[in-house]
Amino acid sequence: MIRKIFDEALSDGKCYEVLTHLCTQIGPRLSGSPGAARAVDYTRSVMEKEKFDKVSTQECMVPHWVRGNPSEVFVVSGGKNDVLPSCALGGSVSSGGKAIIAEVIEVKQLDDLEKLGKAKIEGKIVFFSRPMKPTHIQTFEAYGGCVDQRGSGAAKAAQYGAVGVIVRSMSLREDDFPHTGGMHYDTLYKKIPALAISTAAATRLSKLMAANKPVKISLTCNSETLPDTLSHNVIGQLTGTEKPGEYLITGGHLDAWDNGQGAHDDGAGCVQSIEALRILKAIGYRPRHSMRAVMFMNEENGLRGGLKYAEVAEKTGEKHLAAIESDRGGFTPRGFTIEGEQDWVDKINGFRKLLEPYGLNEFKKGGGGADIGPLKKSGTLCLGYIPDSQRYFDFHHAGSDVIENVNKRELEMGAASIAAMLYLLDKYGFN
Amino acid sequence: MIRKIFDEALSDGKCYEVLTHLCTQIGPRLSGSPGAARAVDYTRSVMEKEKFDKVSTQECMVPHWVRGNPSEVFVVSGGKNDVLPSCALGGSVSSGGKAIIAEVIEVKQLDDLEKLGKAKIEGKIVFFSRPMKPTHIQTFEAYGGCVDQRGSGAAKAAQYGAVGVIVRSMSLREDDFPHTGGMHYDTLYKKIPALAISTAAATRLSKLMAANKPVKISLTCNSETLPDTLSHNVIGQLTGTEKPGEYLITGGHLDAWDNGQGAHDDGAGCVQSIEALRILKAIGYRPRHSMRAVMFMNEENGLRGGLKYAEVAEKTGEKHLAAIESDRGGFTPRGFTIEGEQDWVDKINGFRKLLEPYGLNEFKKGGGGADIGPLKKSGTLCLGYIPDSQRYFDFHHAGSDVIENVNKRELEMGAASIAAMLYLLDKYGFN
Repeated sequence: MIRKIFDEALSDGKCYEVLTHLCTQIGPRLSGSPGAARAVDYTRSVMEKEKFDKVSTQECMVPHWVRGNPSEVFVVSGGKNDVLPSCALGGSVSSGGKAIIAEVIEVKQLDDLEKLGKAKIEGKIVFFSRPMKPTHIQTFEAYGGCVDQRGSGAAKAAQYGAVGVIVRSMSLREDDFPHTGGMHYDTLYKKIPALAISTAAATRLSKLMAANKPVKISLTCNSETLPDTLSHNVIGQLTGTEKPGEYLITGGHLDAWDNGQGAHDDGAGCVQSIEALRILKAIGYRPRHSMRAVMFMNEENGLRGGLKYAEVAEKTGEKHLAAIESDRGGFTPRGFTIEGEQDWVDKINGFRKLLEPYGLNEFKKGGGGADIGPLKKSGTLCLGYIPDSQRYFDFHHAGSDVIENVNKRELEMGAASIAAMLYLLDKYGFN
Repeated sequence: MIRKIFDEALSDGKCYEVLTHLCTQIGPRLSGSPGAARAVDYTRSVMEKEKFDKVSTQECMVPHWVRGNPSEVFVVSGGKNDVLPSCALGGSVSSGGKAIIAEVIEVKQLDDLEKLGKAKIEGKIVFFSRPMKPTHIQTFEAYGGCVDQRGSGAAKAAQYGAVGVIVRSMSLREDDFPHTGGMHYDTLYKKIPALAISTAAATRLSKLMAANKPVKISLTCNSETLPDTLSHNVIGQLTGTEKPGEYLITGGHLDAWDNGQGAHDDGAGCVQSIEALRILKAIGYRPRHSMRAVMFMNEENGLRGGLKYAEVAEKTGEKHLAAIESDRGGFTPRGFTIEGEQDWVDKINGFRKLLEPYGLNEFKKGGGGADIGPLKKSGTLCLGYIPDSQRYFDFHHAGSDVIENVNKRELEMGAASIAAMLYLLDKYGFN
């Protein structure tokens, strides 16, 4: 069966074509945008054409943040007039229709703000410059060790009177792409604009500040938050032959940051989820339990789709046995994380011999994924598909997250890996 | 120690910089070319700057084939005037200063030629169109199942009076890059021009031939073989503290096909070999046995460097305990092939626990590599570094094998994997 699954994926795979359409024909699909609405319609139509047993959408209200005209950051004094490639962080307020010109103060850690205190920070733009640590083999660990600067930097800096924040992009690669991503404010303090600058620009600025102080920069940001908007999760289903009211689901998130095409994050996870069900159908496998491919809306800046899905599942008494999320890019397969009891880790490790020939070697405890997280409280076993992580943060949340940076075979192998796990769980997981 | 090796590779790695120089500053470096001579000088200077204990070159005579002006293949009749992106196969003769215009006959297997016979083949251009099989998980198996068309197609077709040969490129990707590669003639028959056409062009031509027969094409090829030229292997050494006359070597081949930059094939293997020794030196490891990084010359169309290296080693009584080759691209690590007795496979599998955290899971019987092959008859244990193979044939022998398609971290992880294996072999392999 697993051989058949991979043969189908690699010979007659459809997911690369679907992802190409999603990336190049739909337009940016951040929650609340016209592109997101088109992506809902498109993925629904793809699953309808595949004649899944049931295809539906599920309403949810989502935040609606818009980037507006591109941001601008450049050095005003203390160095030559250097433009620093930048982009607003998701959720950032604007600079109020004008440039903010202020001295920059560089910090490596959020805690440094307290040490510096209001006297040194007030009226300045705080530059968070700690790079991702290259020595982590799993790049997600390097990301985890840095992303507090992006998520909480503005909230903390505002406490000390900063007028704006720039953050070194979360990437292990030194290049000119700024990487956006979610951030939050502290309601007790002023909301100040927060932007990412490219890694290469951050390195230049750090060097400049080491040599010439003070450095002043100009920062313009044009983003704004509009009222919440109606959007949808998209759900395709193969109905189970034995236990149709019990579910095994696989999903990704359909929304994506708007500066690239969201090819890896998380177009890949969406098309792989559809493809996993398509493969099982194509090779004639009739699942015992109902299986679903779920395109969750609004993972990036709200998680409203994931929350809504779990809420509805609970309300309607749909028993979710297991959920797999693919939200780490469309790269070559490595394994699965398992968010559950050791029994489950052992059980899934028992499938290892069957999966190793396909490059799946890692079966270990770890988070399943943000969108499926809300299902945990009902006892759902959560798994995360692990592709190789080396290239992920080159593209993550950046203009370079485009279809050209996705390899067709790697994407297909991921879809087959998920289909294989769904099959094994369906057949041997829940007796 | 292994943690230290990876830390050094990922924090202060030099191999991406060296590969960038090799790819962008040296020029094409097919055996016998001025670029190959510059590559010898450059890699020697890199190892001298790293202050390896000994850096030397080793003379060898190499074939000197030149591509000349770009080839041309286009449809003359039986379809619209379609240009089929093409390149001469390495070693091909020219079309004699003029175009060869002839009917095309398509075959999928070399054996089909015998079935068709001279009556149907004489005076025609044979089109070998069998694609690589996408269902192989290891893409090298798909390559192995197809490459007879490129290697022996012209020799076989000439037996039946064909006037030229075109071959579908050896790639799993459908695109416009023709992929070159080695081929041979049969001295009993006429040498006829042999070209690769891109996979997309091959698919178009197959469709055209299914719809309209006969199809005539025009084929021009301007390559020629010049007299053998003096060239060199390049050898850098860290001298062993306990057994300086016993050697552990790691190598790649310095020559590369001339239509791309030879970034993955095999610039990657060369710079990883240098880097493996640099890393061990940088972290202060003093090897028990002598270790060498060897840039072999002329793997692609002669293997003269590999043969010469083994010949000299035998003559001078240098005992080569083990040799590692990296010639499968600079992709994320997967493991090593071991060409030796089962005892050795078991012994190296014993290192698995130490290497798994770095993505190295596969330790299995298999060929070490072409360049180190000639050492086998003296009893050298041969190992091949295995990176992930999914993307390799996208770039292999094509204009797309350029530095932009190499990921810095993946390249560095490969160098660290080789350094780790050298360390383990030095410390625990030969007691």
